[in-house]
Amino acid sequence: MKPFMNADFLLPNASSQRLFHDYAAPMPIIDYHCHLPPADIANDSRFKNIAQAWLGGDHYKWRVMRANGVAEADITGHEPDYRTFLAWAKTVPYIVGNPLYHWTYLELQRYFGIKEVLSEKTAPLIWDACNAQIVTPEFGARALLTRMKVRAVGTTDDPADTLEHHIAYAAARQSGEPVMTPSYRPDKALAIDDPVAWKAYLDKLGAAADLSIGSYQDLVAALDKRHAAFHALGCRASDHALITPVATFATAQILENIFAKLLTGSLPAPEESEAFKTALLLEVGRMNAKRGWAMQLHLAAIRNLNTPMFKQLGPDTGYDAASDATIARNLGAFMDALQRDGMLPKTILYSLNPNDLEVLGTLMGCFQDGSVPGKMQMGSAWWFNDHIEGMRRQMVSLANLGLLSRFVGMLTDSRSFLSFPRHEYFRRILCALIGGWMENGEIPADFATCGGMVQDISYRNAKNYFAIPGVED
Amino acid sequence: MKPFMNADFLLPNASSQRLFHDYAAPMPIIDYHCHLPPADIANDSRFKNIAQAWLGGDHYKWRVMRANGVAEADITGHEPDYRTFLAWAKTVPYIVGNPLYHWTYLELQRYFGIKEVLSEKTAPLIWDACNAQIVTPEFGARALLTRMKVRAVGTTDDPADTLEHHIAYAAARQSGEPVMTPSYRPDKALAIDDPVAWKAYLDKLGAAADLSIGSYQDLVAALDKRHAAFHALGCRASDHALITPVATFATAQILENIFAKLLTGSLPAPEESEAFKTALLLEVGRMNAKRGWAMQLHLAAIRNLNTPMFKQLGPDTGYDAASDATIARNLGAFMDALQRDGMLPKTILYSLNPNDLEVLGTLMGCFQDGSVPGKMQMGSAWWFNDHIEGMRRQMVSLANLGLLSRFVGMLTDSRSFLSFPRHEYFRRILCALIGGWMENGEIPADFATCGGMVQDISYRNAKNYFAIPGVED
Amino acid sequence: MKPFMNADFLLPNASSQRLFHDYAAPMPIIDYHCHLPPADIANDSRFKNIAQAWLGGDHYKWRVMRANGVAEADITGHEPDYRTFLAWAKTVPYIVGNPLYHWTYLELQRYFGIKEVLSEKTAPLIWDACNAQIVTPEFGARALLTRMKVRAVGTTDDPADTLEHHIAYAAARQSGEPVMTPSYRPDKALAIDDPVAWKAYLDKLGAAADLSIGSYQDLVAALDKRHAAFHALGCRASDHALITPVATFATAQILENIFAKLLTGSLPAPEESEAFKTALLLEVGRMNAKRGWAMQLHLAAIRNLNTPMFKQLGPDTGYDAASDATIARNLGAFMDALQRDGMLPKTILYSLNPNDLEVLGTLMGCFQDGSVPGKMQMGSAWWFNDHIEGMRRQMVSLANLGLLSRFVGMLTDSRSFLSFPRHEYFRRILCALIGGWMENGEIPADFATCGGMVQDISYRNAKNYFAIPGVED
Repeated sequence: MKPFMNADFLLPNASSQRLFHDYAAPMPIIDYHCHLPPADIANDSRFKNIAQAWLGGDHYKWRVMRANGVAEADITGHEPDYRTFLAWAKTVPYIVGNPLYHWTYLELQRYFGIKEVLSEKTAPLIWDACNAQIVTPEFGARALLTRMKVRAVGTTDDPADTLEHHIAYAAARQSGEPVMTPSYRPDKALAIDDPVAWKAYLDKLGAAADLSIGSYQDLVAALDKRHAAFHALGCRASDHALITPVATFATAQILENIFAKLLTGSLPAPEESEAFKTALLLEVGRMNAKRGWAMQLHLAAIRNLNTPMFKQLGPDTGYDAASDATIARNLGAFMDALQRDGMLPKTILYSLNPNDLEVLGTLMGCFQDGSVPGKMQMGSAWWFNDHIEGMRRQMVSLANLGLLSRFVGMLTDSRSFLSFPRHEYFRRILCALIGGWMENGEIPADFATCGGMVQDISYRNAKNYFAIPGVED
Repeated sequence: MKPFMNADFLLPNASSQRLFHDYAAPMPIIDYHCHLPPADIANDSRFKNIAQAWLGGDHYKWRVMRANGVAEADITGHEPDYRTFLAWAKTVPYIVGNPLYHWTYLELQRYFGIKEVLSEKTAPLIWDACNAQIVTPEFGARALLTRMKVRAVGTTDDPADTLEHHIAYAAARQSGEPVMTPSYRPDKALAIDDPVAWKAYLDKLGAAADLSIGSYQDLVAALDKRHAAFHALGCRASDHALITPVATFATAQILENIFAKLLTGSLPAPEESEAFKTALLLEVGRMNAKRGWAMQLHLAAIRNLNTPMFKQLGPDTGYDAASDATIARNLGAFMDALQRDGMLPKTILYSLNPNDLEVLGTLMGCFQDGSVPGKMQMGSAWWFNDHIEGMRRQMVSLANLGLLSRFVGMLTDSRSFLSFPRHEYFRRILCALIGGWMENGEIPADFATCGGMVQDISYRNAKNYFAIPGVED
Repeated sequence: MKPFMNADFLLPNASSQRLFHDYAAPMPIIDYHCHLPPADIANDSRFKNIAQAWLGGDHYKWRVMRANGVAEADITGHEPDYRTFLAWAKTVPYIVGNPLYHWTYLELQRYFGIKEVLSEKTAPLIWDACNAQIVTPEFGARALLTRMKVRAVGTTDDPADTLEHHIAYAAARQSGEPVMTPSYRPDKALAIDDPVAWKAYLDKLGAAADLSIGSYQDLVAALDKRHAAFHALGCRASDHALITPVATFATAQILENIFAKLLTGSLPAPEESEAFKTALLLEVGRMNAKRGWAMQLHLAAIRNLNTPMFKQLGPDTGYDAASDATIARNLGAFMDALQRDGMLPKTILYSLNPNDLEVLGTLMGCFQDGSVPGKMQMGSAWWFNDHIEGMRRQMVSLANLGLLSRFVGMLTDSRSFLSFPRHEYFRRILCALIGGWMENGEIPADFATCGGMVQDISYRNAKNYFAIPGVED
């Protein structure tokens, strides 16, 4: 019987252990897509207590607490404090099998050196032990990143954002600290199904771009101007949330007509909405191709499904689910539209529904063009799929349908400064997979080759693929 | 090499063996959803022979016999007798890998103490050995349940049913015998696509409720009256068969108009049909919330796909398949409609298509509200998924997306009095999963905690969740 | 640590090793569905070099080369030569985890006796070593088949094809050489969405059938005449490529109207197109039933998704993907329409989307009728699913939902004369599965029974199911 989460956690044999310890573990991290608040990095923010760090905004934890019968008042009803922490401590023994179980212990072990089991009984001691450390300088935002060998973080930013924190941090960054680059997420420019909010957004975007937006072409121009500004700050990726891909193609004139209609506050017809979104996404695709960026499509997340709780807590509070709508036809047609112009950028495809992996993996293969190794990427197991089976399934599917060796690897997609051990978790699963192949004679037991592949997937592929300026090895 | 189906069947290591033998095996059974005929329990029915017990109504077996080239005449063409048994005995060696293989041997071993391999050669001996036992009192309907430590069975009943057998059994039940409660399955009240049959059903329902049903509101009133009557007999769950969830919302007036149209014998338009079913299901949902029941949604079964055989044999004869229609949008909207009124009951989601697990698991999480641990449940692997891989996949998916520890666990969903070893089968798979995590160091090797979890899932969660009156420990 | 791809490759324990070496390996091969060019077999063609054999038409390899960053010029830009081979040799170390990795080494080992690792470094030596052999008589088309104990190959042929090579080969075939039979693939007769090309095709078909095709009934008559001619040459299977199943039923008069409209060059309306295709496929189904053939439905492949590359290279060049459109309803209705006439033939269902396995497996069960063991078949893991996980998933799904023991087993579906070790790959995976069940005590450790099942699935089931005339044991 293996001890709980020891050094060889998730590594079932000697090959996988050697791959992890000798090859994967030493590699630094490029967290190319996350939701860390740029201000916290720029300001080197500190936490007041472990409840704030763990439970202040983590809707993953909120969901399982609700499922465990914890009242909302103890979850989001007040500032995170011991009462919230205790509710979490009581929940942890019930989340066996959920990735949060391992994440919780990885965070306690790696950041705090705590190896106790968390429960109602141990809660007071662990509360004190964590809080004694969390107020020290090693738990400042930047130190947390540096400790984990993070070389770059890609935050998630609106084109209308001024990026002031990125600018400030870039000026102040010390050697050894990670590069912080924005990612370009123009979802609000596409959110035309609420024309009033959208129009207000155009004003904000126009201000950021120093352009008055009175037409569809103006909107494209403003987005492109911001795209250039993001580029100047090291941004090398856009990011898009879509329940289903869009592929309704319209003329420039029709797009202007839809724009004019929206400005009056009228709701677009469903087909108009699809056409407008398709056109704008194609434009961003072309900008990405032009500037050598990667386009990240996050598909199949239906959001805010619980109306009363959405009214009470707003978005990103734990009320989202996977869609099962079809994606293959539209996704193929969308990528082909860019391909026909020779303007298909590097692309990373994510779906919240793991059944989509085979569609993504086979579609990707239709648009690999030899220009960049792994140009089209199957994104790492995303959100609700970010667990042992989900990651393994993604890796095996990618390997079978394309090239695992060219995979750009893990990202946290997280709002938490304590989530970086998830890269370690990913690497252990990767090494278990490849080490297993070695042990079984499915590949030659050549550590130089296999270890190199592990290092590529852990770090070098992302470094080369995104080519974020200023990243140190 | 492990002996065939020995005491450690499906238990690959010491931890899983200890979990099963010391924790899971001793627990009693709550079979909260099955199709046992109430009359057979009330009357303590006996079987004439093993063919009748095994092959009289078991369309699972019929299907694989047909696939094996057995002529229909030898399957359903006559009263189950030695000829039917022999056809089955010849088929068994060909069903390796199918769950029926293990079920067959579990039934032979656990009920009859027979460890021989069943084949054409051994058929005569096993026929005699089984039949010698099956006529004894230990093979009466009640004794079969008591032997298996069944504490409660939830039969499946129409609101128009008089429940006479439930009433009779409740009066006659001896200490140590299981509680038998009805489940409320109003499918026929929703079956408006055959208005003539539906109208005849309304008469029957009205009679049972002692109400004349002349309007939509009358129908709701009649259903509620029967709901109350079922409640008085210990019913704590409704059950619904739906190919896809419904979420078309209509006003009271429109519903009355549809009702009036249906009474004339006119077919409803598709949207009318959806609206009517949505409204009625919402009403049952509210009744369930009001009386603290669980709502079981059985999704994605397309029925009676073989027209000639349906004409020949009727429903439930082995001609059903999994649907792949989308469910996420409607299922989310349906549950949200109840949530908005604060009337979403405890809910158990089943799908015949295992690809739906991730949609179910993520949707569930959107409606957990902290009021009841595991309020929203992912139902156990259902029907065609009730096998090792299916159960394991359901457990792992539930664990990753929610809380395995709060799972209400296994149900037979069976028409057979001999199907209760499926609970043992389920528990072995559960113990293999959790024991595997212990052995691998994925969870602490704490038998008190893990064994308690196994016991919860085997029995206590269902006991607490349904809170069926009169269930003994 | 097991040596790389040794004799016990993919066989994890003694039972699976014994099953493979003693039972599976000695069995001959019936490759009932492939794309080998009949002319090459009739003419006993030779290869000029290994690049031609490996890279001349293999779009599987092209896809992964593109994904690895190889320029198109080095892939399809010229006759396959050392430059192409070198590009492939450089790619191989990057395809770890992809089935092409194992296929490559199986082909080097089994045909050429080469056990070296292929890479840029070893490329020159392996190029020379392969080419020294490939020009010898043992590498003629027929010798390659005979060496692999191939007893029958089913090529893929258009009803308009004259089958001259089949006729010539049948006349010249030596004892010990495989039977070559055509398969009947009438896709072009259904390709009415390009009426001009379709009309030209009718002329060709009419010429082959010696019939003038002026009506829908004429078209059916011509197809039936060719069906009879194919039958006379040993054909026992039709084959159909469909993204989704069709199930729109129309009268004879409507079909004639659509036919007349198509003859004018008008595009059919979507519903007309569905109705026409449904009717024609039903006709082929009835022909198959009449002559005892199997009907192979290949579902869910979307083709030629990359428009510029389709223009440059044409079809079957690596630009196809899996569809996620629903199939259950239509597939059920299509088969039921034949069943209602008592004319449902033996049927093999394949889908490019592995998520369809459960729909296929449960639908199949609705149409098994006891007339032929395994009448309805779940086809072996197809195309992008033809890898360890895909094959295992197909076998486990088939076993759970039907009868693995009646499975007709592997087919290469390949254009390559070197692809026959894929049968060995399949058999290893099959033996690992069944041997694993034996080791775990899930089935009795009875080698006669289990070995017989392995032999059935490897060879005898296909032999009996297709009953191709002249196949030697």
